[in-house]
Amino acid sequence: MKLGRFAFKNKIFFGVVKENEVIEIDSPFLGSKPKASYLLKDLKILPPCVPSKVIAVGLNYRNHAKELGMPIPEEPIIFLKPPSAVIAHKEKIVLPPESKEVHYEGELAVVIKRPLYRPKNLKEIKDAILGYTCFNDVTARDLQRKDGQWTRSKSFNTFAPIGPFVETDLNPSNLRIQTKVNGEVKQDSFTSELIFDVYYLIDFVSHIMTLFPGDIIATGTPPGVGRLNPGDVVEVSIEGIGTLINEVIAYE
Amino acid sequence: MKLGRFAFKNKIFFGVVKENEVIEIDSPFLGSKPKASYLLKDLKILPPCVPSKVIAVGLNYRNHAKELGMPIPEEPIIFLKPPSAVIAHKEKIVLPPESKEVHYEGELAVVIKRPLYRPKNLKEIKDAILGYTCFNDVTARDLQRKDGQWTRSKSFNTFAPIGPFVETDLNPSNLRIQTKVNGEVKQDSFTSELIFDVYYLIDFVSHIMTLFPGDIIATGTPPGVGRLNPGDVVEVSIEGIGTLINEVIAYE
Repeated sequence: MKLGRFAFKNKIFFGVVKENEVIEIDSPFLGSKPKASYLLKDLKILPPCVPSKVIAVGLNYRNHAKELGMPIPEEPIIFLKPPSAVIAHKEKIVLPPESKEVHYEGELAVVIKRPLYRPKNLKEIKDAILGYTCFNDVTARDLQRKDGQWTRSKSFNTFAPIGPFVETDLNPSNLRIQTKVNGEVKQDSFTSELIFDVYYLIDFVSHIMTLFPGDIIATGTPPGVGRLNPGDVVEVSIEGIGTLINEVIAYE
Repeated sequence: MKLGRFAFKNKIFFGVVKENEVIEIDSPFLGSKPKASYLLKDLKILPPCVPSKVIAVGLNYRNHAKELGMPIPEEPIIFLKPPSAVIAHKEKIVLPPESKEVHYEGELAVVIKRPLYRPKNLKEIKDAILGYTCFNDVTARDLQRKDGQWTRSKSFNTFAPIGPFVETDLNPSNLRIQTKVNGEVKQDSFTSELIFDVYYLIDFVSHIMTLFPGDIIATGTPPGVGRLNPGDVVEVSIEGIGTLINEVIAYE
C-alpha cells in the first residue's frame, strides 16, 4: 500500500494512492475506513508524514565512508535534522548563501508507525514500522567540514526532501537505490550494502530515544555524493517505492 | 511575567505564575484573557513549552571550551536535541545503561514566541523571544568522546530538563548562572561570559532554520561540568528566573 499526505484547497489529509487515484483515510497509523476519493493530479503532494524528529545515520555504506576519507564506524553515528527542513516531492531545494558546496545524498528512509522504546525483540521492531520512502539528506559539505559537528550543514530549510509516498509492503533488505542529477546516474547501490540494516538502526535509535508515529530514520547514503547547482533536478529512486524529485534553486 | 505549563487532573494548560497562584491563559504566544485560577501546589509542573526543535550550542563559554581541551569556535557550533528528551522541573533524569559518565550542563535557554527566519534587524529578533528559562543539557560524556558527533550523547530520554517557568521580562546580558549537585556549587558564572550572546545565537540559528513558537535555544554551559550519579539532585539556578531541580536515577 502506498500512503501519502495531500492538500486539496484548504484541506490536508492522509490518503492511499492507487495509480491515479487517492482515497482519503483518517490516519495512516490506525486502521480507518476509506472516505472521499480524489484524482492524484488534482492534489498537492505533501511530505508523507509529520515527524516529531528526523534521525539520520552517517557513513552507513562502506564505500561512502571511504569516499569521504572517514573510518567505518563500529556503531551507527546518528544525527538529527530539524522537522523545519522537511519538504515534499516536487518542492524546491533552496541553496543558502552560507554554503558554496551543497550535496545530494539519496537515502532509504523508514517511517515509524507506533511509539517504540527499547524493544525486546524483532517483532516489536517490525510492528513499529509504517513503511519506507525516499529521502535526500541534503548537506552543505563545506560547512560540515568546517564545523566538525554535522548539524548546521544538514539543517537548512528544504534540506530534507522526503516522499513521494510511504510504501508499507516492502522488504528493505535488498532494494536498488539510485540518485540522478539532470537524468545522469550519480549514486547506484543496493540496501544490502548497508553496514547497519534497517532493523538494527531502529533498535539502536530506540534505545536512546522514544520513537513516535511519523518519525523518520534516514539510513545513510551510498557512494557517489556530489554537488547541486541552481537549476538542477535531483531524483532519488528506490525499487518498490518510487522516485522523489526536487528542483534546486538559489536563495533570493 | 512567569509563564508555565501545567496539568490538573486530565487537563493541560498554560498559566501565569504569581507567587503561589497560577492563572490559566489560552496561549503564551498570543494575548489572552485570564481564565480559571489554581494554587501552584495543586498542579503538576510540565515543561513550559512544547518545542518543535531544541537547538543547543557547544563551547559557548570560553572557560568551558578550555576545560574540554577544545578550541574556541569562530562561529557557534550548534546541535539538536530531540523533543522526546524534554522533561519538566522535578521530573527525574534517568541514567541509561549505555553510558558510564553522564554529566550535567547548566544553561540559559531562550524560548521562541513567533516564527522567525532571517531577521533583518535586532528588533525582529527581540520581538521573537517569549522569554528565558533554565536548561540542563545532560550529556553522556563517554559517548560524546566516542562518537565524535554529539547527537547520541545528548539525545537520551530525560536529557533535556527545562523550566520551571519562562520569565518574559528579563535582560539576558549579565545573569548569574549556577549549577549545584546535592547542594554543592559546581558551576558559577555569568551570561556576560557567553562568547556568542543570545541575540547573536537567535540570528545565527534563524539563518539556517525557521524558528517556531515554543522552540528552544540552549545557549551553552559555563565551566565546571561533572558527573551525575543515581540519587544526586541537580539544580540549575539563573538570576531572575528561578531554579530547575531534577533528581537522578538509574535506568531499571
